[in-house]
Amino acid sequence: MRILGVDPGLTRCGLGVVETTGTGRRVRLVDVGVVRTPAELSPHLRLLAVAEEIDQWIDRHRPDVVAVERVFAQANVRSITGTSQVAGVAMLAAARAHLPLALHTPSEVKAAVTGNGRAEKPQVQEMVRRILGLEEKPRPADAADSLALAICHAWRGGGVGSAVRAQYGGADTLPRAAGPGLTPAQRMWAEAERSARRAGAVAPKG
Amino acid sequence: MRILGVDPGLTRCGLGVVETTGTGRRVRLVDVGVVRTPAELSPHLRLLAVAEEIDQWIDRHRPDVVAVERVFAQANVRSITGTSQVAGVAMLAAARAHLPLALHTPSEVKAAVTGNGRAEKPQVQEMVRRILGLEEKPRPADAADSLALAICHAWRGGGVGSAVRAQYGGADTLPRAAGPGLTPAQRMWAEAERSARRAGAVAPKG
Repeated sequence: MRILGVDPGLTRCGLGVVETTGTGRRVRLVDVGVVRTPAELSPHLRLLAVAEEIDQWIDRHRPDVVAVERVFAQANVRSITGTSQVAGVAMLAAARAHLPLALHTPSEVKAAVTGNGRAEKPQVQEMVRRILGLEEKPRPADAADSLALAICHAWRGGGVGSAVRAQYGGADTLPRAAGPGLTPAQRMWAEAERSARRAGAVAPKG
Repeated sequence: MRILGVDPGLTRCGLGVVETTGTGRRVRLVDVGVVRTPAELSPHLRLLAVAEEIDQWIDRHRPDVVAVERVFAQANVRSITGTSQVAGVAMLAAARAHLPLALHTPSEVKAAVTGNGRAEKPQVQEMVRRILGLEEKPRPADAADSLALAICHAWRGGGVGSAVRAQYGGADTLPRAAGPGLTPAQRMWAEAERSARRAGAVAPKG
Protein backbone atom coordinates (compact mmCIF):
# COMPACT_ATOMS: atom_id res chain seq x y z
CA MET A 1 0.00 0.00 0.00
CA ARG A 2 1.23 3.47 -0.91
CA ILE A 3 0.37 6.39 1.32
CA LEU A 4 0.73 10.08 0.50
CA GLY A 5 1.08 12.12 3.68
CA VAL A 6 0.30 15.84 3.53
CA ASP A 7 1.43 18.21 6.29
CA PRO A 8 -0.60 21.26 5.27
CA GLY A 9 0.78 24.79 5.36
CA LEU A 10 0.61 27.85 3.16
CA THR A 11 4.29 28.81 3.48
CA ARG A 12 5.51 25.21 3.44
CA CYS A 13 3.40 22.16 2.68
CA GLY A 14 5.17 18.85 3.35
CA LEU A 15 4.53 15.91 1.03
CA GLY A 16 5.81 12.41 1.76
CA VAL A 17 5.10 9.04 0.17
CA VAL A 18 5.81 5.71 1.87
CA GLU A 19 5.06 2.17 0.83
CA THR A 20 4.33 -0.77 3.12
CA THR A 21 5.93 -4.10 2.38
CA GLY A 22 5.50 -7.61 3.74
CA THR A 23 3.34 -7.64 6.82
CA GLY A 24 2.78 -3.91 6.65
CA ARG A 25 5.09 -3.10 9.56
CA ARG A 26 7.96 -2.54 7.12
CA VAL A 27 7.75 0.83 5.40
CA ARG A 28 10.05 2.27 2.79
CA LEU A 29 10.52 5.83 1.58
CA VAL A 30 9.24 6.55 -1.92
CA ASP A 31 9.54 10.34 -2.10
CA VAL A 32 9.57 13.41 0.10
CA GLY A 33 9.42 17.13 -0.62
CA VAL A 34 8.01 20.51 0.29
CA VAL A 35 5.88 22.96 -1.67
CA ARG A 36 6.82 26.52 -0.82
CA THR A 37 4.72 29.49 -1.88
CA PRO A 38 5.80 33.12 -1.48
CA ALA A 39 3.82 35.29 0.94
CA GLU A 40 3.69 38.08 -1.68
CA LEU A 41 1.62 35.89 -3.98
CA SER A 42 -2.15 36.24 -3.81
CA PRO A 43 -3.65 33.63 -1.42
CA HIS A 44 -5.75 31.90 -4.07
CA LEU A 45 -2.71 31.53 -6.32
CA ARG A 46 -0.72 30.11 -3.41
CA LEU A 47 -3.45 27.52 -2.96
CA LEU A 48 -3.36 26.83 -6.69
CA ALA A 49 0.40 26.21 -6.57
CA VAL A 50 -0.03 23.73 -3.71
CA ALA A 51 -3.00 22.03 -5.42
CA GLU A 52 -1.08 21.61 -8.67
CA GLU A 53 1.86 20.06 -6.86
CA ILE A 54 -0.35 17.62 -4.93
CA ASP A 55 -2.09 16.64 -8.18
CA GLN A 56 1.32 15.96 -9.72
CA TRP A 57 2.41 13.83 -6.76
CA ILE A 58 -0.79 11.78 -6.99
CA ASP A 59 -0.23 11.30 -10.73
CA ARG A 60 3.41 10.36 -10.27
CA HIS A 61 3.19 8.11 -7.23
CA ARG A 62 -0.33 6.67 -7.53
CA PRO A 63 -0.98 6.42 -3.78
CA ASP A 64 -3.80 4.18 -2.48
CA VAL A 65 -4.76 6.65 0.21
CA VAL A 66 -4.08 10.27 1.17
CA ALA A 67 -3.40 11.06 4.84
CA VAL A 68 -3.78 14.70 5.89
CA GLU A 69 -2.91 16.15 9.26
CA ARG A 70 -6.03 17.13 11.14
CA VAL A 71 -5.70 20.82 11.93
CA PHE A 72 -6.41 21.91 15.49
CA ALA A 73 -6.49 25.17 17.38
CA GLN A 74 -3.24 27.08 17.23
CA ALA A 75 -2.08 30.23 18.90
CA ASN A 76 -2.27 32.13 15.64
CA VAL A 77 -5.71 32.30 14.06
CA ARG A 78 -4.27 33.66 10.82
CA SER A 79 -2.15 30.55 10.56
CA ILE A 80 -5.01 28.17 11.38
CA THR A 81 -7.15 29.55 8.58
CA GLY A 82 -4.31 29.29 6.02
CA THR A 83 -3.41 25.81 7.20
CA SER A 84 -7.03 24.72 7.01
CA GLN A 85 -7.37 26.17 3.51
CA VAL A 86 -4.41 24.06 2.36
CA ALA A 87 -5.85 21.01 4.16
CA GLY A 88 -9.12 21.60 2.30
CA VAL A 89 -7.29 21.79 -1.02
CA ALA A 90 -5.40 18.55 -0.24
CA MET A 91 -8.62 16.79 0.75
CA LEU A 92 -10.25 17.97 -2.47
CA ALA A 93 -7.30 16.61 -4.48
CA ALA A 94 -7.83 13.20 -2.87
CA ALA A 95 -11.56 13.29 -3.66
CA ARG A 96 -10.95 14.31 -7.28
CA ALA A 97 -8.46 11.46 -7.68
CA HIS A 98 -11.09 9.05 -6.24
CA LEU A 99 -8.81 8.23 -3.32
CA PRO A 100 -9.88 7.58 0.27
CA LEU A 101 -8.82 10.15 2.83
CA ALA A 102 -7.47 9.67 6.34
CA LEU A 103 -7.11 12.40 8.96
CA HIS A 104 -4.73 11.97 11.90
CA THR A 105 -4.02 14.42 14.69
CA PRO A 106 -0.46 15.56 15.43
CA SER A 107 -0.48 13.66 18.73
CA GLU A 108 -1.64 10.45 17.04
CA VAL A 109 1.23 10.83 14.59
CA LYS A 110 3.81 11.46 17.33
CA ALA A 111 2.50 8.56 19.40
CA ALA A 112 2.62 6.25 16.39
CA VAL A 113 6.26 6.90 15.51
CA THR A 114 7.81 7.68 18.92
CA GLY A 115 5.43 6.13 21.44
CA ASN A 116 4.90 9.58 22.95
CA GLY A 117 2.07 11.84 21.80
CA ARG A 118 4.00 14.88 23.04
CA ALA A 119 7.35 14.10 21.46
CA GLU A 120 9.50 17.01 20.22
CA LYS A 121 10.18 17.57 16.53
CA PRO A 122 13.79 16.23 16.51
CA GLN A 123 12.67 12.97 18.12
CA VAL A 124 9.97 12.54 15.47
CA GLN A 125 12.53 13.23 12.71
CA GLU A 126 14.99 10.74 14.21
CA MET A 127 12.35 8.01 14.46
CA VAL A 128 11.24 8.66 10.87
CA ARG A 129 14.89 8.20 9.84
CA ARG A 130 15.21 4.90 11.71
CA ILE A 131 11.84 3.53 10.63
CA LEU A 132 12.62 4.22 6.98
CA GLY A 133 16.22 2.96 7.34
CA LEU A 134 17.76 6.21 6.10
CA GLU A 135 21.37 7.19 6.78
CA GLU A 136 20.41 10.79 7.44
CA LYS A 137 17.26 12.51 8.61
CA PRO A 138 14.88 13.01 5.71
CA ARG A 139 15.33 16.32 3.97
CA PRO A 140 13.88 18.87 3.89
CA ALA A 141 13.32 18.60 7.64
CA ASP A 142 9.93 20.30 7.23
CA ALA A 143 8.74 17.32 5.29
CA ALA A 144 9.58 14.72 7.96
CA ASP A 145 6.14 15.38 9.43
CA SER A 146 4.45 14.30 6.22
CA LEU A 147 6.42 11.03 6.32
CA ALA A 148 5.55 10.56 10.00
CA LEU A 149 1.91 11.04 9.06
CA ALA A 150 2.13 8.45 6.29
CA ILE A 151 3.89 5.98 8.62
CA CYS A 152 1.28 6.63 11.29
CA HIS A 153 -1.42 5.77 8.81
CA ALA A 154 0.34 2.59 7.73
CA TRP A 155 0.62 1.41 11.32
CA ARG A 156 -2.44 2.71 13.07
CA GLY A 157 -5.24 1.58 10.92
CA GLY A 158 -3.75 -1.21 8.94
CA GLY A 159 -5.05 -0.46 5.52
CA VAL A 160 -7.25 1.68 3.43
CA GLY A 161 -10.46 0.26 4.86
CA SER A 162 -9.73 1.69 8.25
CA ALA A 163 -8.91 5.05 6.65
CA VAL A 164 -12.36 5.19 5.24
CA ARG A 165 -13.89 3.91 8.48
CA ALA A 166 -12.03 6.61 10.38
CA GLN A 167 -13.78 9.22 8.23
CA TYR A 168 -17.12 7.97 9.39
CA GLY A 169 -16.34 8.37 13.04
CA GLY A 170 -15.03 4.85 13.45
CA ALA A 171 -18.14 3.04 12.26
CA ASP A 172 -17.27 -0.46 11.14
CA THR A 173 -19.65 -0.42 8.25
CA LEU A 174 -20.12 2.33 5.74
CA PRO A 175 -23.47 3.73 4.76
CA ARG A 176 -24.57 2.27 1.45
CA ALA A 177 -24.59 4.48 -1.58
CA ALA A 178 -24.81 2.99 -5.04
CA GLY A 179 -26.86 2.97 -8.19
CA PRO A 180 -28.20 5.70 -10.45
CA GLY A 181 -29.72 8.94 -9.31
CA LEU A 182 -26.88 9.80 -6.98
CA THR A 183 -25.30 13.21 -6.72
CA PRO A 184 -21.68 13.46 -7.96
CA ALA A 185 -20.48 13.45 -4.35
CA GLN A 186 -22.55 10.40 -3.50
CA ARG A 187 -21.14 8.60 -6.53
CA MET A 188 -17.63 9.46 -5.35
CA TRP A 189 -18.52 8.17 -1.95
CA ALA A 190 -19.75 4.89 -3.33
CA GLU A 191 -16.60 4.57 -5.45
CA ALA A 192 -14.36 5.29 -2.48
CA GLU A 193 -16.23 2.66 -0.52
CA ARG A 194 -15.76 0.08 -3.26
CA SER A 195 -12.08 0.89 -3.78
CA ALA A 196 -11.54 0.70 -0.02
CA ARG A 197 -13.06 -2.79 -0.01
CA ARG A 198 -10.83 -3.87 -2.87
CA ALA A 199 -7.71 -2.43 -1.26
CA GLY A 200 -8.78 -3.79 2.10
CA ALA A 201 -8.71 -7.32 0.73
CA VAL A 202 -4.97 -7.09 0.09
CA ALA A 203 -3.97 -4.43 2.60
CA PRO A 204 -1.98 -5.62 5.61
CA LYS A 205 -3.78 -5.57 8.94
CA GLY A 206 -1.93 -3.89 11.83
CA MET B 1 -19.36 43.71 -13.59
CA ARG B 2 -20.57 40.37 -12.26
CA ILE B 3 -19.55 39.25 -8.80
CA LEU B 4 -19.88 35.77 -7.30
CA GLY B 5 -20.06 35.99 -3.51
CA VAL B 6 -19.24 32.87 -1.50
CA ASP B 7 -20.20 32.56 2.18
CA PRO B 8 -18.17 29.46 3.03
CA GLY B 9 -19.51 26.66 5.22
CA LEU B 10 -19.40 22.88 5.22
CA THR B 11 -23.04 22.34 6.20
CA ARG B 12 -24.32 25.27 4.14
CA CYS B 13 -22.28 27.28 1.64
CA GLY B 14 -24.06 30.38 0.33
CA LEU B 15 -23.58 31.41 -3.30
CA GLY B 16 -24.86 34.70 -4.69
CA VAL B 17 -24.27 36.51 -7.97
CA VAL B 18 -24.98 40.20 -8.50
CA GLU B 19 -24.34 42.48 -11.45
CA THR B 20 -23.58 46.17 -11.31
CA THR B 21 -25.28 48.48 -13.76
CA GLY B 22 -24.85 52.12 -14.73
CA THR B 23 -22.57 53.91 -12.31
CA GLY B 24 -21.95 50.76 -10.34
CA ARG B 25 -24.12 51.83 -7.39
CA ARG B 26 -27.06 49.99 -8.92
CA VAL B 27 -26.87 46.25 -8.39
CA ARG B 28 -29.24 43.58 -9.57
CA LEU B 29 -29.70 39.99 -8.44
CA VAL B 30 -28.56 37.35 -10.93
CA ASP B 31 -28.80 34.17 -8.86
CA VAL B 32 -28.67 32.95 -5.28
CA GLY B 33 -28.50 29.51 -3.71
CA VAL B 34 -27.01 27.29 -1.06
CA VAL B 35 -24.92 24.12 -1.33
CA ARG B 36 -25.77 21.75 1.49
CA THR B 37 -23.70 18.68 2.26
CA PRO B 38 -24.71 15.98 4.75
CA ALA B 39 -22.60 15.59 7.89
CA GLU B 40 -22.54 11.81 7.39
CA LEU B 41 -20.59 12.22 4.15
CA SER B 42 -16.81 11.97 4.33
CA PRO B 43 -15.26 15.46 4.68
CA HIS B 44 -13.30 15.32 1.43
CA LEU B 45 -16.43 14.34 -0.47
CA ARG B 46 -18.33 17.21 1.15
CA LEU B 47 -15.60 19.54 -0.12
CA LEU B 48 -15.86 17.94 -3.54
CA ALA B 49 -19.60 18.55 -3.64
CA VAL B 50 -19.09 22.23 -2.79
CA ALA B 51 -16.23 22.58 -5.29
CA GLU B 52 -18.30 21.06 -8.10
CA GLU B 53 -21.17 23.40 -7.40
CA ILE B 54 -18.92 26.48 -7.35
CA ASP B 55 -17.34 25.38 -10.64
CA GLN B 56 -20.83 25.07 -12.14
CA TRP B 57 -21.81 28.53 -10.92
CA ILE B 58 -18.66 30.03 -12.44
CA ASP B 59 -19.40 28.25 -15.74
CA ARG B 60 -23.03 29.31 -15.75
CA HIS B 61 -22.73 32.92 -14.60
CA ARG B 62 -19.25 33.89 -15.84
CA PRO B 63 -18.42 36.26 -12.96
CA ASP B 64 -15.59 38.81 -13.34
CA VAL B 65 -14.46 38.34 -9.75
CA VAL B 66 -15.04 35.97 -6.85
CA ALA B 67 -15.55 37.47 -3.37
CA VAL B 68 -15.08 35.11 -0.42
CA GLU B 69 -15.79 35.91 3.20
CA ARG B 70 -12.57 36.17 5.16
CA VAL B 71 -12.81 33.63 7.98
CA PHE B 72 -11.92 34.82 11.46
CA ALA B 73 -11.74 33.27 14.89
CA GLN B 74 -14.97 31.70 16.01
CA ALA B 75 -16.03 30.11 19.24
CA ASN B 76 -15.94 26.66 17.72
CA VAL B 77 -12.56 25.54 16.38
CA ARG B 78 -14.13 22.59 14.63
CA SER B 79 -16.28 25.01 12.68
CA ILE B 80 -13.41 27.37 11.84
CA THR B 81 -11.37 24.57 10.27
CA GLY B 82 -14.32 23.32 8.18
CA THR B 83 -15.22 26.85 7.14
CA SER B 84 -11.62 27.58 6.18
CA GLN B 85 -11.42 24.35 4.19
CA VAL B 86 -14.45 25.43 2.16
CA ALA B 87 -12.99 28.93 1.77
CA GLY B 88 -9.78 27.34 0.45
CA VAL B 89 -11.74 25.28 -2.05
CA ALA B 90 -13.66 28.39 -3.21
CA MET B 91 -10.42 30.36 -3.58
CA LEU B 92 -8.92 27.51 -5.59
CA ALA B 93 -11.97 27.48 -7.87
CA ALA B 94 -11.41 31.19 -8.58
CA ALA B 95 -7.72 30.60 -9.34
CA ARG B 96 -8.47 27.67 -11.66
CA ALA B 97 -11.02 29.80 -13.53
CA HIS B 98 -8.38 32.56 -13.90
CA LEU B 99 -10.53 34.95 -11.88
CA PRO B 100 -9.33 37.54 -9.39
CA LEU B 101 -10.23 36.98 -5.77
CA ALA B 102 -11.45 39.42 -3.14
CA LEU B 103 -11.65 38.73 0.58
CA HIS B 104 -13.91 40.83 2.81
CA THR B 105 -14.47 40.46 6.55
CA PRO B 106 -17.98 40.00 7.96
CA SER B 107 -17.84 43.48 9.54
CA GLU B 108 -16.80 45.08 6.23
CA VAL B 109 -19.78 43.39 4.61
CA LYS B 110 -22.21 44.50 7.31
CA ALA B 111 -20.88 48.05 7.23
CA ALA B 112 -21.15 48.18 3.45
CA VAL B 113 -24.81 47.17 3.26
CA THR B 114 -26.20 48.55 6.56
CA GLY B 115 -23.73 51.24 7.60
CA ASN B 116 -23.11 49.32 10.83
CA GLY B 117 -20.30 46.77 11.10
CA ARG B 118 -22.11 45.04 13.94
CA ALA B 119 -25.54 44.82 12.36
CA GLU B 120 -27.68 41.76 13.12
CA LYS B 121 -28.51 39.15 10.48
CA PRO B 122 -32.15 40.27 9.87
CA GLN B 123 -30.99 43.85 9.21
CA VAL B 124 -28.43 42.61 6.68
CA GLN B 125 -31.09 40.49 4.97
CA GLU B 126 -33.53 43.41 4.87
CA MET B 127 -30.92 45.74 3.34
CA VAL B 128 -29.98 43.11 0.76
CA ARG B 129 -33.67 42.91 -0.16
CA ARG B 130 -33.95 46.70 -0.54
CA ILE B 131 -30.66 47.14 -2.39
CA LEU B 132 -31.58 44.46 -4.92
CA GLY B 133 -35.17 45.75 -5.19
CA LEU B 134 -36.72 42.40 -4.25
CA GLU B 135 -40.28 42.05 -2.95
CA GLU B 136 -39.22 39.49 -0.36
CA LYS B 137 -36.02 38.73 1.45
CA PRO B 138 -33.76 36.62 -0.74
CA ARG B 139 -34.22 32.88 -0.21
CA PRO B 140 -32.73 30.77 1.12
CA ALA B 141 -32.06 33.19 4.00
CA ASP B 142 -28.65 31.53 4.53
CA ALA B 143 -27.57 32.79 1.17
CA ALA B 144 -28.33 36.46 1.86
CA ASP B 145 -24.82 36.73 3.28
CA SER B 146 -23.28 35.74 -0.03
CA LEU B 147 -25.31 38.48 -1.77
CA ALA B 148 -24.28 41.00 0.90
CA LEU B 149 -20.68 40.02 0.27
CA ALA B 150 -21.05 40.51 -3.48
CA ILE B 151 -22.77 43.90 -2.96
CA CYS B 152 -20.02 44.89 -0.52
CA HIS B 153 -17.44 44.11 -3.16
CA ALA B 154 -19.32 46.09 -5.81
CA TRP B 155 -19.47 49.14 -3.57
CA ARG B 156 -16.30 49.07 -1.53
CA GLY B 157 -13.64 48.74 -4.13
CA GLY B 158 -15.38 49.81 -7.26
CA GLY B 159 -14.08 47.21 -9.62
CA VAL B 160 -11.94 44.22 -10.15
CA GLY B 161 -8.68 46.13 -9.89
CA SER B 162 -9.26 46.93 -6.27
CA ALA B 163 -10.09 43.27 -5.60
CA VAL B 164 -6.67 42.31 -6.81
CA ARG B 165 -5.05 45.21 -4.97
CA ALA B 166 -6.80 44.13 -1.78
CA GLN B 167 -5.11 40.75 -2.11
CA TYR B 168 -1.73 42.38 -2.03
CA GLY B 169 -2.36 44.20 1.21
CA GLY B 170 -3.69 47.30 -0.43
CA ALA B 171 -0.67 48.08 -2.57
CA ASP B 172 -1.63 50.29 -5.46
CA THR B 173 0.66 48.56 -7.88
CA LEU B 174 1.03 44.87 -8.35
CA PRO B 175 4.35 43.07 -8.44
CA ARG B 176 5.29 42.33 -12.04
CA ALA B 177 5.20 38.77 -13.27
CA ALA B 178 5.19 38.03 -16.97
CA GLY B 179 7.04 36.22 -19.70
CA PRO B 180 8.34 32.71 -20.06
CA GLY B 181 9.94 30.66 -17.32
CA LEU B 182 7.21 31.34 -14.82
CA THR B 183 5.69 28.70 -12.59
CA PRO B 184 2.03 27.88 -13.29
CA ALA B 185 1.02 29.94 -10.27
CA GLN B 186 3.08 32.91 -11.42
CA ARG B 187 1.52 32.69 -14.87
CA MET B 188 -1.90 32.73 -13.24
CA TRP B 189 -0.86 35.70 -11.23
CA ALA B 190 0.27 37.60 -14.30
CA GLU B 191 -2.97 36.72 -16.06
CA ALA B 192 -5.04 37.85 -13.10
CA GLU B 193 -3.13 41.09 -13.09
CA ARG B 194 -3.76 41.68 -16.79
CA SER B 195 -7.43 40.78 -16.55
CA ALA B 196 -7.80 43.07 -13.55
CA ARG B 197 -6.30 45.92 -15.59
CA ARG B 198 -8.65 45.25 -18.47
CA ALA B 199 -11.69 45.01 -16.22
CA GLY B 200 -10.50 48.05 -14.25
CA ALA B 201 -10.60 50.17 -17.40
CA VAL B 202 -14.33 49.64 -17.78
CA ALA B 203 -15.36 48.86 -14.21
CA PRO B 204 -17.29 51.54 -12.35
CA LYS B 205 -15.43 53.37 -9.61
CA GLY B 206 -17.19 53.60 -6.26
